[in-house]
Amino acid sequence: FALGSVWTLDLIFATHMVFGSETADLEMLKTTADVLIHEPEDYTSSLKTHLKKGLSFPNARKFALRDFLAREFGPLSERIEEIGRSNNILGLEYITAIKLLGSQIDVSVVKRVGAEDTETEFTGEFSSATAIRNMIAAEEWDRVKQSVPETSYAALKREFSAGRGPVTPESLETTIISLIRANTREKFSGIYGFGEGLDARFKFCADRCTALHDLLDCIKTKRFTRTRISRTILNAVFGIEPTFVKKSRACGPQFLRVLGFNNRGREFLSYVKKDLSVPLITTASMWKKLLAKSQKGNLEIDAALFKEQLFLDFRASSLFGFLCPQRNTVDGIMDFTEPVRYREE
Amino acid sequence: FALGSVWTLDLIFATHMVFGSETADLEMLKTTADVLIHEPEDYTSSLKTHLKKGLSFPNARKFALRDFLAREFGPLSERIEEIGRSNNILGLEYITAIKLLGSQIDVSVVKRVGAEDTETEFTGEFSSATAIRNMIAAEEWDRVKQSVPETSYAALKREFSAGRGPVTPESLETTIISLIRANTREKFSGIYGFGEGLDARFKFCADRCTALHDLLDCIKTKRFTRTRISRTILNAVFGIEPTFVKKSRACGPQFLRVLGFNNRGREFLSYVKKDLSVPLITTASMWKKLLAKSQKGNLEIDAALFKEQLFLDFRASSLFGFLCPQRNTVDGIMDFTEPVRYREE
Repeated sequence: FALGSVWTLDLIFATHMVFGSETADLEMLKTTADVLIHEPEDYTSSLKTHLKKGLSFPNARKFALRDFLAREFGPLSERIEEIGRSNNILGLEYITAIKLLGSQIDVSVVKRVGAEDTETEFTGEFSSATAIRNMIAAEEWDRVKQSVPETSYAALKREFSAGRGPVTPESLETTIISLIRANTREKFSGIYGFGEGLDARFKFCADRCTALHDLLDCIKTKRFTRTRISRTILNAVFGIEPTFVKKSRACGPQFLRVLGFNNRGREFLSYVKKDLSVPLITTASMWKKLLAKSQKGNLEIDAALFKEQLFLDFRASSLFGFLCPQRNTVDGIMDFTEPVRYREE
Repeated sequence: FALGSVWTLDLIFATHMVFGSETADLEMLKTTADVLIHEPEDYTSSLKTHLKKGLSFPNARKFALRDFLAREFGPLSERIEEIGRSNNILGLEYITAIKLLGSQIDVSVVKRVGAEDTETEFTGEFSSATAIRNMIAAEEWDRVKQSVPETSYAALKREFSAGRGPVTPESLETTIISLIRANTREKFSGIYGFGEGLDARFKFCADRCTALHDLLDCIKTKRFTRTRISRTILNAVFGIEPTFVKKSRACGPQFLRVLGFNNRGREFLSYVKKDLSVPLITTASMWKKLLAKSQKGNLEIDAALFKEQLFLDFRASSLFGFLCPQRNTVDGIMDFTEPVRYREE
């Protein structure tokens, strides 16, 4: 997620990136990112020890970092507890990605005000993203209105009243459980994120659960967090294999896709367009010409990966359309029928 | 279907087989079966010609048979129109399977009375199977009662009122359309029954349809019948690959599974048990021991195929349980929790 977004920003010549974080301690985040990138042996052996105890990767990493920084930097380590908080982890991933890519993007941090992101309840103007998602799914519009900007609220109301929402993980409940019950354990072991016996846990739990939240609770262990399992389930639904993820990590996004822009964005895009190293897609139907071009070697991209990444986008939109409460309002080819959004600013 | 059932009967030393048919003309069925098995060149070239015209396989075969039999046998060919009718096709498949297996099973035919099997409406005591299935799905109990034996009626009522029915193709609608939308065309080309561009049709139609009957109508062509497409969809849901089908056709059932019996059946089974060439499964949990035994070469079966066939059975039961109107009444491991049914006769 972080690597993909930073890489996309870098490809489009972004110069600055601002993200929200529980801490404003950019120095600590940068130092920590360095440890993650260079992986000194002291750190990796400590990480392995914590993983062997059965901790989840995020937790094992947090403890290994604390151990390492305490030894190396003393005072800084007091601030390390902070990195376990969700938006700090994300910030850390952004910084790591920027360093890994050798990008020139300059980072700033906005210190978060209000609720922890993991807080699930409404807490007023600064409710957490998790809480806001829950309110939206429950269509608690009064609370949503107090928690999000006016334009977001208007967009949500417009889409939902047209039958295009809410689409929640539960919208996939029937498909997920049917899919796991109907297929072999071996089928799942070929999907990205399985392995370490997770395929067997999926089969065991799907045979015994009829609700998604029960399924997640059943599969969850100290090592495999609910978040990790949810991601892995989506990999299974879309049939995402390790080779695709590996290739995407190595080669990055093979296109930039514009879903909407304002007049400043349009100006900027037309200004940088000729210097872009990957194609800029404004209309989905461009894919055929672009693929042919890249197959002939006229583009500096990997033709097969380009197609695989773009079609994953199309497939996700198609599934989204089907999961909308009013199935007929959005068809599976919305990628080809919905125009790019443009707004004067 | 026919090959599997005849092979199973043969494995358990059945001596006679009786099936319903629109015709009582066993001689015609047997002659036709011979043509299908030996495939004389005159017949195959005529079949190819009809297929090239874009006819479905069943229709192309019917016309090719008529052409061939007219040339070879003259008078018999007048009766060939008959073989296009659904239960004659099935009967033909049974006879072909018996001949292919070199089985000693003796065949008798019961001439069908009442409606054509393709008739979809209630026609009284002798309604067609299709019509009866429709009545059951619609829970038209008065009509069902008039159309099926009393014991069947009682069983249906009992199961449905416990929330274990109806389970119809539509129960899989959401899963099927989500599955096709979420996955690549290439994914489906690896499934048994795809090819000849059917994978592309599946993708095209699933992106545009939100109901199963619309999907089938959209995919259907002169060449690909609705029945063929429905079967192919199930192959996709269960991830059935050509190698599995090919191996099963070559090696046959690797086990016999008893779901229920009466006292005569029990006596018979204990009498033949020691002479069976494949294991007789009465309890699902026997699979582990049987697999270990066959891996050691102590059984005359293919261990890998045994596991694949049996697990397909388990997966089908598990999915069925999930598709029941009351999901919690049947769990995904009913194969392991439901005892073999026994009834005194």
